[in-house]
Formats: sequence, structure tokens, C-alpha cells
Amino acid sequence: MSELVTSRLVDPAADVAGLTEALIACPSVTPATGMVFDCLEQMLAPMGFAVHRFQAGEAPDGPVENLFAIRRGPAGTRHFAYAGHVDVVPPGEGWTSGPFAPTRRGTPETGELLYGRGAVDMKGSVAAFIAALRDVPQEAGTVSLIITGDEEGVATHGTLALIDHMNAAHIRPDLILVGEPTSVHRLGDMIKVGRRGSVNMWIEVEGTQGHVAYPHLADNPITRLVALLAELKAIKLDEGTDWFQPSNLEVTDIACGNKATNVIPQKASARISIRFNDLHTGQSLSDLVTAIAERHGASVRPVISGEAFLTPPGAFSDLVLAAIKAETGLDAEVSTSGGTSDARFLKNLAPVIEFGLCNATMHKKDEAVAIADLEALQRIFTRITLAGLAAI
Amino acid sequence: MSELVTSRLVDPAADVAGLTEALIACPSVTPATGMVFDCLEQMLAPMGFAVHRFQAGEAPDGPVENLFAIRRGPAGTRHFAYAGHVDVVPPGEGWTSGPFAPTRRGTPETGELLYGRGAVDMKGSVAAFIAALRDVPQEAGTVSLIITGDEEGVATHGTLALIDHMNAAHIRPDLILVGEPTSVHRLGDMIKVGRRGSVNMWIEVEGTQGHVAYPHLADNPITRLVALLAELKAIKLDEGTDWFQPSNLEVTDIACGNKATNVIPQKASARISIRFNDLHTGQSLSDLVTAIAERHGASVRPVISGEAFLTPPGAFSDLVLAAIKAETGLDAEVSTSGGTSDARFLKNLAPVIEFGLCNATMHKKDEAVAIADLEALQRIFTRITLAGLAAI
Repeated sequence: MSELVTSRLVDPAADVAGLTEALIACPSVTPATGMVFDCLEQMLAPMGFAVHRFQAGEAPDGPVENLFAIRRGPAGTRHFAYAGHVDVVPPGEGWTSGPFAPTRRGTPETGELLYGRGAVDMKGSVAAFIAALRDVPQEAGTVSLIITGDEEGVATHGTLALIDHMNAAHIRPDLILVGEPTSVHRLGDMIKVGRRGSVNMWIEVEGTQGHVAYPHLADNPITRLVALLAELKAIKLDEGTDWFQPSNLEVTDIACGNKATNVIPQKASARISIRFNDLHTGQSLSDLVTAIAERHGASVRPVISGEAFLTPPGAFSDLVLAAIKAETGLDAEVSTSGGTSDARFLKNLAPVIEFGLCNATMHKKDEAVAIADLEALQRIFTRITLAGLAAI
Repeated sequence: MSELVTSRLVDPAADVAGLTEALIACPSVTPATGMVFDCLEQMLAPMGFAVHRFQAGEAPDGPVENLFAIRRGPAGTRHFAYAGHVDVVPPGEGWTSGPFAPTRRGTPETGELLYGRGAVDMKGSVAAFIAALRDVPQEAGTVSLIITGDEEGVATHGTLALIDHMNAAHIRPDLILVGEPTSVHRLGDMIKVGRRGSVNMWIEVEGTQGHVAYPHLADNPITRLVALLAELKAIKLDEGTDWFQPSNLEVTDIACGNKATNVIPQKASARISIRFNDLHTGQSLSDLVTAIAERHGASVRPVISGEAFLTPPGAFSDLVLAAIKAETGLDAEVSTSGGTSDARFLKNLAPVIEFGLCNATMHKKDEAVAIADLEALQRIFTRITLAGLAAI
């Protein structure tokens, strides 16, 4: 990459808003490779980071680029990791300014806002963490960034590949902060200490076709499917836990495709989605549903999207909450709500907590972040990192 | 129509098998018009029948031809009517001989069989009734034939139009024999004194789309549809009656069409079919289902195909059973099973009973009738007609 292009990508002295603008200006619709990682490397290398980049996967899910950057502290110090992604969802239509042309606009009410795809999800967060490290001396401990270009897509060649890389290099952080946008109304009003797991199951019932006037000669698969789905829907999976809402099962599709009004069909099918807390696993739920389905003569094909995880509230969440309180005055809600994130993979390495910008505009047109929020997040990240490295 | 073509259609002196062959040789896939009715007229006119033919309906369900033929007996005598159809279902593939090229084949076991589309459903029956009248003197009473070209199709321009014609002419039979193939294993083993009614209902549930991770912000229409269908399926509509099996509800289709595993869909739908006995009407069942559906927030669009009917066993069925017993030695089962027939319309004119050939090959390739059955049916029809005209 030429010096000219590099200098266009990033100004090493830029503030957090400038770093965010540099990242937004590198289009990186998932799966991402190339320029956005060049930009990131140009930010991290001058700060003393060893940067390892590699690609994984093939079309259509790949290739995906991943970046692991580490700045080692003195021997025996702790290791604090930040995890995130620089791929973004497709911009869609109707933007006021170009989605990859970062633009500042604002009113007295909103303050100055920075518009662009990825502003909150999550290039602004990545930029805030990098800027935050300017106030974290190397002597404080080891710091790393685990950055993928495949979080918004199928996520098979992203964080999982980064974890393989870290395992192969015998690198294991003590704590991991995932910088996803967890704030809801104001920066700092919510952190996530866990996520529910997710499993989808495809259910099929095969019957015996026949004429609707002679039901005794047929076996209606819809009758059995409806009974099965009603039974599944009536199950109380759990009452919730101290930290999780109750697990929930939804039927997300039903199908048969029988056009003849006088015919009992041969086959019927359905798809269910279960979002579950840490009282279950994808496998335990697959076994439960399969056992019930077998009684109704139905077959089940489960696909586990992710297991539930919980970092039980304690020292790690306390230091995150303290950092937020110090900068915003807010007592953040400790939540386990919402969809899945790459924390479902990272939990196998170390305790994980998620905290980041307001998610109101993520995945929408005119995605935007308040510049004051970027600056506050930078300061919060400095506090979290210093406290994380200092924690026993 | 030229004399030459006419003579090709029918030999006035033919026996019942010859008459059947003449009718089969006139292709008449539903809706039927023209040649097959010309053939029928050539059989009936020489026997003293006044033949009235007319067409009704337009493409694609029509035009349909209908024929009403009447031979009046002396004033004050009774009126016995035979009802049937000369349209046939499409022949399909794989016939051993041409479906409209009547062919005789047989083995010592089967006896001689006559192959062709309509052999049992129901040109053979129409031919048997016409041949039967050779032994019914005009002095015995009034005899009529109510013959449509639209029984196998949508049936909107067939028997209903014939009934309109009869009403307009102030013609009302005392008894009606529908000659549909009611026999199962042997000619004469079953008659029908009633049919169940049929109603289809299209059910739709509208919910609120949303993300499966936030079910409290959505309203899953499949949840409500499954609960509704389970409730409908659990209803015991009745225990059956002396003459009818219990009414039965089947779900014949379910649909949603949601491809996204993480989305709670907006809409879901189903279709049900109810075959019901004379304890219900199409309207009473539509009201019942609609009331239950409303509790689940679902809408229902019912389409009534036909009401149930019953000619309570008594003098009419007794004379039919006696005629069968005299010719075959069998005690026919008195049944109300199976699908709908045009008897659902004719019941409004007079008591109706259905009796005809064996239905094993109807609607299939290589449809065939035993010539011995045609001859026996002719004799049974003679007995039934004479007894029907004599009945008080």
C-alpha cells in the first residue's frame, strides 16, 4: 500500500471522531477485507502493537479478514482484551449523506453528530478504544484487540478463527470487553453480562395422503404437527433466573403447500426458534423437542446458533459500572437481553462483558453517533482498561 | 346432425353393452356438450321421450350441456326420475386401449369387461337405465332422465340448472334414483341413502412482525393459529347418528412463508375441510368455527360445497334393496359414506337414493365394467322403476 493512500486513510494524531471518520470512510460491508484493516493497522502499529492479520473462508461467506493486535506489558502483568468488528451491514437506501462519506451535522438539541454506516455498530467503539489506550501506559499490562470482518454475516470465519489463532499462540486474556452498542437511550444506561443462546429447529411430519372424505384411510400430518406445536408452545422452559428472562420458544414458520381442498396432504413442516438462558444448552433443548416430536411421529433437525453465556455480576461488572458512573453519572442496567453476539464464542476464553454506544440507529439509514458520546466512551474505556489490568 | 353421423353414434337396437359403448365413444371430458348428448337423444327419442337440451355457463366452467327427457304416463300416475351425468374426468395416461375407444377384454375369472372412460362413472349406468325402460310400459307411469354434462367439474351449471328448468316447467318427480357407482366389491353390495355435507374454510391470522429475540414486542400469528387449530381439532362435532358416521374436521393446509429464522412473521393461514352429517348445516359450522376463531383473533372465509342430506330408510330404500336382492341375492349395505354427489341438489325436489356400478376403477386408468354387471344393473333398474311407480 502506497504512502499516499495510507496518509489518506488515517491521521495518527486524530481525535476519536477523526479515527471514527477514517474507519467509516473505508467501505466494509460484511464480509470485510483489505482497506478498513489497513486503516486499523496504521492506527495500532505506531502505538506499539504487534499486528497479525489473516484471511479465512471462501465465497460466498468469505473471504473474511481478521486482525489480532497485542501490546505486551511487563512480565506477570494482566491481559485485557477488547473485541469488536469493522464489517458493517449493507447501507440500504435513503441516506441523507453518503453512508461511507462520514459527515458531521447537528442541532443545539442533538449536539454534533457523526453520520455514517458503522458509526455506532461499531467503528466508533473501535476508535474509542484505540484512543482510550493513549492514556493506558504500556507498564499497566498487556492489551489486545480482537477484530473481525465477519460479525454481521454468518460469523463462521471471524471470531472463531481469531480464537483458534490465539489458542495456537497460547494467548489467553484475563478479561474481554466486547464493544458492541449496548446503550439504549443514553450512553451508559446498559451493559450486558450475558446473552441468551439460540437454536432453530426444522420439524417435519410425514403422513399418508388421502381423500378428505375418507380420513380413516389417511393420516393427516397437519393434525400431528398442530398437536406437537401446541404441546411445545405449552412447555414452560423455565421461570427465568436472577440474570435471565425466561427462555422462549416461537414457531417462526409453518408450511404444507396443499392446494386441493379435498385432499389430506402427505407432509407438513414447521420451524421453531428457541432463545434460551443458561439453564439450557442447544443440545438439551434439541433432545427435549426431539423426544416430544417422536411421540407425534415428527422428525427434528436442530441448528444451534449459539449457546447462552453469563459472566456472573461481580468484580468485572463492578469495575465497568464504576467507570460508566464516573463519566456519565449513570447506574447502568446489568442486562442479558437481546440477540446473540460474538461474546458467545469469546466466553470460552475469559469472562466477557459487553458495553458500547447507543444502538438506536444501528442497521438503519442515517446511522449516527454523538461526538460527545465518542469522547465519553473513550474516557470510560480508559477507566475500564486501567481497572481491568489492575484487578486481582 | 347428418344421418350418417347419427347412425355411427348409436344402434337403436343395441343391448346395454352396445349402448354403453356408444356413449363411451363420444369423448366428453367435463364440462361436456354436443356429441354425447346427440347420442343420448338418439336413444331416447325413439322410446317416446320428449327431449329438452340446453346449454348453460361460459368458459372456463362452461359451456355445459344438460338434457331433461320425459315420457309421460297416464294422468294421475306417479313420476319416477333417474339422474346422472355423461361428462367424465380426464382420462390421464397409461391406458391399455384408448379411453374413448370402448374395448371388450376379459379372462375366465373376470368375465368379459368393457373398458373405457365412463364405463362405471357413469355412462354404463345411464345405458342400463335406458335399456331397463324397454321393460317398463308407458302405462306404468311417468319416467324422466335428468342428465348433466357438469358433475365432475364445478357443477354450477349442471344439475342446478336442470332443477331450475324442472321448477319452471312445474315438473316434480315423486322419487329420484341417482345412478352413481355406489357398489364397492360386488354389484349390489351398497346403496346410499344420504351424503355428508362439505364446507371448506380459509382461516387467516394477522399478528405483528418482530425479532424473535424480542417476542414481547411482537404478536406471533402462528401461536394463535396453532392454538385455534388445536381447539378446532379437539371439538367433537357429534357422535354420529343412526345413519351417519360422526362429522369430521381436517386441516388441509397451513401456510406462512417466513424464510427468516430470526423473524416472528406477520401472517399465518390455514384451510380446513369439514364433512358433516345432517345434525349440522354449512352455515351452523361456519358460525361455530368463526366464533372460536374470533377468540383467537382469526378471520374465517367459509365456502359451502354442499349440505348433508338423508332419505330416511323406509319404503323407497326397501324397494331398492328388494330389487337388488332379487337379482343378485345380496343384502346391500345402506350407507351415507363417501364424498358429495349431485344428490345434494336433487334432495330438494324429492326423496333421493343412489345406486349403481362398482366404483373400484372410477377416475383411474383402464376404467372398466363387467358386461354381466351392466345386464344385472339393467334388470335391477327395471325392478326399481316399476316398484317406484307402483309405490303409494
